[in-house]
Amino acid sequence: MSVTAPAGFLAAGIAAGIKQSGDSDLAVVATRNSAPVSAAGVFTSNQMTAAPVVVSRNHLGESGGRAAAVVINSGIANAATGHVGIRDAERMCEITASALDCRSREVLVCSTGLIGFTLPMGAIFQGIPKAVSSLSDHGGSQAAEAMMTTDTVRKEVVVSADGFTVGGIAKGAAMIEPDMATMLAVITTDADAPPSVLRSVLRSGVDASFNRLTVDGAQSTNDTTLLLASGQAGPVSRSDLAAAVAEACRSLALQMADDAEGSTKTVILRVTGAANDAEAAKAARDCANCQLVKCSWFGEDPYWGRIASEMGAAGVAFDPWRLRIAYGNHLVYGDGSPQSPDAQATAAYMRQRHLELNVDLGMGSGQAEIITVDLSYAYIEENSRTS
Amino acid sequence: MSVTAPAGFLAAGIAAGIKQSGDSDLAVVATRNSAPVSAAGVFTSNQMTAAPVVVSRNHLGESGGRAAAVVINSGIANAATGHVGIRDAERMCEITASALDCRSREVLVCSTGLIGFTLPMGAIFQGIPKAVSSLSDHGGSQAAEAMMTTDTVRKEVVVSADGFTVGGIAKGAAMIEPDMATMLAVITTDADAPPSVLRSVLRSGVDASFNRLTVDGAQSTNDTTLLLASGQAGPVSRSDLAAAVAEACRSLALQMADDAEGSTKTVILRVTGAANDAEAAKAARDCANCQLVKCSWFGEDPYWGRIASEMGAAGVAFDPWRLRIAYGNHLVYGDGSPQSPDAQATAAYMRQRHLELNVDLGMGSGQAEIITVDLSYAYIEENSRTS
Repeated sequence: MSVTAPAGFLAAGIAAGIKQSGDSDLAVVATRNSAPVSAAGVFTSNQMTAAPVVVSRNHLGESGGRAAAVVINSGIANAATGHVGIRDAERMCEITASALDCRSREVLVCSTGLIGFTLPMGAIFQGIPKAVSSLSDHGGSQAAEAMMTTDTVRKEVVVSADGFTVGGIAKGAAMIEPDMATMLAVITTDADAPPSVLRSVLRSGVDASFNRLTVDGAQSTNDTTLLLASGQAGPVSRSDLAAAVAEACRSLALQMADDAEGSTKTVILRVTGAANDAEAAKAARDCANCQLVKCSWFGEDPYWGRIASEMGAAGVAFDPWRLRIAYGNHLVYGDGSPQSPDAQATAAYMRQRHLELNVDLGMGSGQAEIITVDLSYAYIEENSRTS
Repeated sequence: MSVTAPAGFLAAGIAAGIKQSGDSDLAVVATRNSAPVSAAGVFTSNQMTAAPVVVSRNHLGESGGRAAAVVINSGIANAATGHVGIRDAERMCEITASALDCRSREVLVCSTGLIGFTLPMGAIFQGIPKAVSSLSDHGGSQAAEAMMTTDTVRKEVVVSADGFTVGGIAKGAAMIEPDMATMLAVITTDADAPPSVLRSVLRSGVDASFNRLTVDGAQSTNDTTLLLASGQAGPVSRSDLAAAVAEACRSLALQMADDAEGSTKTVILRVTGAANDAEAAKAARDCANCQLVKCSWFGEDPYWGRIASEMGAAGVAFDPWRLRIAYGNHLVYGDGSPQSPDAQATAAYMRQRHLELNVDLGMGSGQAEIITVDLSYAYIEENSRTS
C-alpha cells in the first residue's frame, strides 16, 4: 500500500523504456482528482545539484507549497546535464500536468540513475500519459518498484496514527554507487496541515532518519524527500504528525541500510557522554565512515582499537580514561584498558545482521545516533566499474 | 644507507622477540659518540595519544630540542595502555640512555603495531643493549627493516644537497590497518641548524608530504616524524635545508603510498582553481577519501560523475559550468558536460600504477595536492580481522 494507504492518493509505476533492462522505471504519485494539496520537500545540499532538484525546489516556491503530483524516473539521474537537463525536468512536469489536468508548477519531479546523461525524452513523453492512465488507489507498490535502481527490494512503509495515516516509498541508500546514485522518498498523509507545518515536520523527520544514515559518506546530487498531505483525515496535532512522519522516515532509512549494496551488517552506532549533541554527531559520523571500522564489522571482529582511535581523531572532547566501548551489552573497552567480555557470547553477537555499537565519551550528556553498514568485497565489486 | 648517509649517525636493527614471527623489531638510530644534537618532532594530533608520543614530546621539551638517539620498536604500538604504557616508554629511553651513556631525556621513542597491548619489557630490556652494540655507520637499512609491520618493503631515502646530506627511514602508510597502525619516520642530516629551524623545516616538510598522504582517512595514535641534525657538514641555508627535508619526506610518503596495503594504484590528486588553498585542500582530501572514487580507480574507470559530486558535497566554492576533470591529459569533464577523450588512450592511462587526477574548480588560484591510493578487495581482506 505505502503512499496509497493515506486517503486521497493514487499511484502507478510502469516500464517506459528508460532502463535498457526493460524494468519498471517511471512512477507517478498524484492526488485524487489532481487537486493541489499542501506539500514540502527536503533536498540535497550538494552544490552539483541535479536538474530535477532545481525544478522541484522552484515549483514548491512558485506554488507556495502546493503540489498535485510527483513524477519520478529511474535509470538516468539527469544530473550534470546543464541547460538541457533543466529543460527536460521542466518538460516532465509539463507532460504530467497536461495528463492530469493540473498546473505544471504543481508537479514535483525526481530522477535517479546515471549522472551525466540526458533523459530519453521520447520514451518519457510516451510513458507519462501511460503511467497517469494506470493511476490507482493500490498503486503504491508499483511506484516503489519503478523508483528502484540497484535496490534489491522495494522500500515501503505505512504508519497508522490516531485518526490519520502516513505512507511512504523510497529507493537507495545514500550515495552507494558511482553511477546509480541517490536516495529518494515520497511520503503521503491524509492529515490536514499547512505547508509550513509540513516543512518543519519533514525537516525534523529527515534529520532524525535519512540524515543519520550513512553508507559511504557520499552525498548525492539528487537526494530528495517529499511530503504531501491530502487533508482528508482532517486536522491532527502537530506532534502526532511529526512522530508519525519521523517513524515512516526511520523505517525507510533502516530498509535502505538493510539493502545497501554489498552490506552484510546494519549497525546502529550510538555516541553518548559527549560535551554536546553536535560533538556526539561528529564522532559518530566519523566512526561510521571509517573504512577500517567498517571492515571490522564485515569480519565480525569486536576490535575496539580503531574505534578508540577514531574518537581521538574526531576533534571532539573526550576522556580516554572514561571512554567506554560496547557491542550491544558486551563491553570491550573501559576504565582506560581493554575489557574481556565473554568471548563466545560476543562472537555470537557479532554474527548477527543488526549490531548496536555504543560509545560513551565520558564528558557530558551530548548524544547522537547514526545508522550505517559494513564494507565488503561486494561493495568494491559493485562500485569499481560504472558499467 | 638512508639515516646513516649523513655524517655523524649510526643505526642498527635487530630481532628482539617482540614480534611472534621472529622478524626484526627493534631499531636504534644514534649520533656518533652519543652526543646530543639539534632535534625536532612532529606528532599525531589524535587525542588518544600513544605513550611513546607523550614521552618523546616531553623529552624534546625538557632537553630544549636536543637528542642523542631514537629507539623504535615494531609489533606493539604501546597505545591505549594507560600508566603502564607511559612507564614502559620511559624505561625504553632509560635503557637506551644507559647503553649509550647519554641522558634519558636525550632519547626519543617510537612504537608501532597492535593497539591495546603492553610491551614485552623483558625482551626489550635484553634487546636494546644488543641493538646499541650493533650500531654502525651502514646500519640505516637494518633500522628501516626493524620498523616494518605490514610493510612489504623498506622505505629509505637519501637526498644529496649542496654541501650536506639528508637521509630518512619510514614505515607504514597512515593508518592502514586496525591493528598495525601508524606512520613513523626518522630523518637525519649533517647540516648544522638550531632546533627552532629544524622545527620549522620539519613542519613544512611534513605538511607538504605525510600530511598530504591519505590512505583511508584514519589518523593513527602513534604517528611521529623526527629530524636530527648532527651539524658535521656545517651551517647551510635555511631554504636549502627546507627543500632537502621536504624532498626526503615526499619520497618517503610516495614509498608509503606505493606499499599501502591492498592498493593497486597510487593517485596524485591535484585540485586547482579553488577560491583559496584551504578550500582546495578540503576538496582534494574529501575526494581522496571517498570510497566510491577509490573503487573507480581500482576498476581503472575514468568515470567523472562521483568526482564532480564530491566537489559539490565538499562545501567549497566552485562553478559547475567551469569545472574541469582530467586523468593526466585526458579531459573527461568540462564546459558543463562530459567530454569524450580518446577511449583507448584513456584506458591505457588508467591501467598505470601511478595516476594523476586534475580537478579545476574554476573559481580562483587556490590549489592543493593529495597523494592517495585505491580501495581493493585486498584492503578489506587485510582489515576485516585483527588477527
